[in-house]
Amino acid sequence: MAKQNKPRRPKAEPPKGFRDYFGTDVTERKAMLEMIAGVYHRYGFDPLESSAVETLDALGKHLPDIDRPNAGVFAWQEDDGDWLALRYDLTAPLARVAAQFRNDLPSPYRRYAMGPVWRNEKPGPGRFRQFYQCDADTVGASSVAADAEICAMLSDALETVGIPRRDYIVRVNNRKVLNGVMEAAGVLDPSDPEKFETERGIVLRAIDKLDRLGEGGVRALLGAGRKDDSGDFTEGANLTGLQADVIMAFMEARRDSGATTCARLRELVSGSQIGTEGVEELETIAALLEAQGYGPDRIVLDPSVVRGLGYYTGPVFEAELTFDILDEKGNPRQFGSVAGGGRYDDLVKRFTGQAVPATGVSIGVDRLLAALRAKGRLGGSEKGPVIVTVMDRARMAAYQAMVGELRAAGVRAEVYLGNPRNFGNQLKYADKRKAPLAIIQGSDEAERNVVQIKDLVLGAKIAASASLEEWKSQPAQFEIPRGELVAQVQRLLNGG
Amino acid sequence: MAKQNKPRRPKAEPPKGFRDYFGTDVTERKAMLEMIAGVYHRYGFDPLESSAVETLDALGKHLPDIDRPNAGVFAWQEDDGDWLALRYDLTAPLARVAAQFRNDLPSPYRRYAMGPVWRNEKPGPGRFRQFYQCDADTVGASSVAADAEICAMLSDALETVGIPRRDYIVRVNNRKVLNGVMEAAGVLDPSDPEKFETERGIVLRAIDKLDRLGEGGVRALLGAGRKDDSGDFTEGANLTGLQADVIMAFMEARRDSGATTCARLRELVSGSQIGTEGVEELETIAALLEAQGYGPDRIVLDPSVVRGLGYYTGPVFEAELTFDILDEKGNPRQFGSVAGGGRYDDLVKRFTGQAVPATGVSIGVDRLLAALRAKGRLGGSEKGPVIVTVMDRARMAAYQAMVGELRAAGVRAEVYLGNPRNFGNQLKYADKRKAPLAIIQGSDEAERNVVQIKDLVLGAKIAASASLEEWKSQPAQFEIPRGELVAQVQRLLNGG
Repeated sequence: MAKQNKPRRPKAEPPKGFRDYFGTDVTERKAMLEMIAGVYHRYGFDPLESSAVETLDALGKHLPDIDRPNAGVFAWQEDDGDWLALRYDLTAPLARVAAQFRNDLPSPYRRYAMGPVWRNEKPGPGRFRQFYQCDADTVGASSVAADAEICAMLSDALETVGIPRRDYIVRVNNRKVLNGVMEAAGVLDPSDPEKFETERGIVLRAIDKLDRLGEGGVRALLGAGRKDDSGDFTEGANLTGLQADVIMAFMEARRDSGATTCARLRELVSGSQIGTEGVEELETIAALLEAQGYGPDRIVLDPSVVRGLGYYTGPVFEAELTFDILDEKGNPRQFGSVAGGGRYDDLVKRFTGQAVPATGVSIGVDRLLAALRAKGRLGGSEKGPVIVTVMDRARMAAYQAMVGELRAAGVRAEVYLGNPRNFGNQLKYADKRKAPLAIIQGSDEAERNVVQIKDLVLGAKIAASASLEEWKSQPAQFEIPRGELVAQVQRLLNGG
Repeated sequence: MAKQNKPRRPKAEPPKGFRDYFGTDVTERKAMLEMIAGVYHRYGFDPLESSAVETLDALGKHLPDIDRPNAGVFAWQEDDGDWLALRYDLTAPLARVAAQFRNDLPSPYRRYAMGPVWRNEKPGPGRFRQFYQCDADTVGASSVAADAEICAMLSDALETVGIPRRDYIVRVNNRKVLNGVMEAAGVLDPSDPEKFETERGIVLRAIDKLDRLGEGGVRALLGAGRKDDSGDFTEGANLTGLQADVIMAFMEARRDSGATTCARLRELVSGSQIGTEGVEELETIAALLEAQGYGPDRIVLDPSVVRGLGYYTGPVFEAELTFDILDEKGNPRQFGSVAGGGRYDDLVKRFTGQAVPATGVSIGVDRLLAALRAKGRLGGSEKGPVIVTVMDRARMAAYQAMVGELRAAGVRAEVYLGNPRNFGNQLKYADKRKAPLAIIQGSDEAERNVVQIKDLVLGAKIAASASLEEWKSQPAQFEIPRGELVAQVQRLLNGG
């Protein structure tokens, strides 16, 4: 018989850009989602969980943060010809749900949703193709009171998960003001809204890059275009210097207070109906927030916020962490944006033909977790279980009875289930599990109806620093009557 | 200009076989997952969250509950040629993780995982292509103490989520015993394990269908084959009558106690080494469970349990709900299986070439929720938020301040954000949201610094049954000083 090739073994790896989360990485995220859900719920929002898979048709071409529409989605064709795709955010599925159930849902419909979304983008360091979002949206409310409320809720949510006031700021702007400025700059003609669309797209993306490119870079993009360090050329909007001045003035319109910022914006959009409307909306938002005590230490008007997403039609907002963290090279850098959102009045219309006002926010939970970990406010390692060791394989039932009693008393506990022959391996296992205590009972102890408790935390401390006398006295291991097992374990776990 | 076709509108529907979950459907599932996670955690299991997407290669051909390998997965090819797929269970990703991180993870590795899985199967009533699983597995423990522990933990988990004892049963069997029976029946030759593989597959699936087909149907499948009501023919294993007798005797080997069942199994597998080993393992499992007090009211040995899955190599177990529910036609039927699992010692080997013992259980959370709802033990509708109505649009800031105070006191509350013109619509909205209270303040009340509280629960009760006098006296609506808003709302919500 000819020698057969061995079957090829699959690689033990997730696909590129995907990763696994272990232990506290899982529980800390779950806890954060729960805290945010609690805030959303208190504000009257109801949970919605749509499926991860949608028809490509329903998702549409609104992928955020990316210049080319339609790219960036994981999609496949079914045998029956239908194209399906993994959702890339939680907003597109909400628009589908709001259209599908429009006769049954309360109006306005306030919903929150949390879960993974998928982006078919080039993965990079810290940039994954599956990540969590945690959204809240109000569908069917045209009043900017809905936008103001979402900003307040975002502020509450950030403080609830452990970002103290002044470590974050929620910045608010309005696309209508931006449109007013576009009109003033001569790149928006209200009588022919589609004219200059390309130019406006370039302006929008240029403003969004102010942080990264600085004033000079943005000016280049507003003008003839910009070559980056790698030599790649980005086309510009070809505005004149005067036109660019209007845009730049807008980006620098932020003043000390909401009122003075609005006054400056009014000047900049004077003559534009939509621009004036936008400033009035910002004034209303500022007044509502002030009445509820959300001052500029939490929420500010900031004309430089535009949000990359094409579909926004009114107020837009963004939450930024204002503290520095150290990057990979040890240099301090601003952590940046952890949440954003805005008003998008046209998404539901795609399905029904009828405009439905909507506004919402999305919190990037994974970024928020990374920020808290970078500040040392999260990432405490959890205590492991109490380990009952196996000295005598034949007495397994007795060991199982011990963990049974401990668990019944609410103590996390387990019997060592590996090969018990080498006792050292059992203690190494306990160490790896971060077990606080190990329980030991050989046949000798069993005959005398006692067990040994080994305090692994104290043991480690002694091993690190003890004198010879302390070491010999072995305070970290002692014998107790079998009947006191649960009580003694509880005493030790409670630090008593 | 030629008339253009209107752009085609996308359908507001999820793909076939997918659905959305609203409100308490979401929170009740989350609560159940939390309760099960609590039990798993107390048993020493650590959380793992792997990504939803795996390489098709890593998932392999182990899709459960389906005769054709490789079908039933949502898969697609990336631009770089790689095939990716949505996970169809949580076991295949665990095998990949256990192989990938074998040098870093503790051994044995106990992990739990919960989340959606996807099956590309024909959807049907109550049969969805995305559903939740909630798994716990021990990798690296060859001792059947690990299997026994998982059975005990499954029993604890079911009771914790609200299935009382005697409303469920965990049934345990062992594939090795089944193999011993196959040997006794002459369809397994230990010196040539691959011989009769097709026949054994048919026997396995036939046993698994005992509930549905009865003894006659199973006998037909063991013999020449079976034509079902629709006329479809399923090929049989072509066993002789004597061979089939051995298999049938095995399925009927359950006796009153674990000990007598094992004695009967010993007879049936006599002469088969693997069969005898399997019986000994069952005896050990039974002894360990008995020592911990898990008697036959919770866990029984039952030779008719085989589990459809091909990859099991030792003990297998299944949890079944034993109460009747009413089906769509109003007829009582058994609810059936809600969890299952077993030992699969070869899954990690696919990646590493080294056998790694593993055993685990998967709880079908959606089925469990359906069972609890069918029994009326879940599905209580949650109270909605307190609704502050809008009598005077100009006073929005004052209304927002009211909900701000209520939320700060922990009360779920919101301002009505729809068009406030029609007050009746506001009350209809409050009704749809199941709001317990509505707060009303027009300009008259504002001047006098009071608010009206409308008790909507009491109001509905009065509307249903009140006499004219009661109706006129309007006890469901009353006036309070503005300063008492929070205290009065809390009093009413607490039923005071």
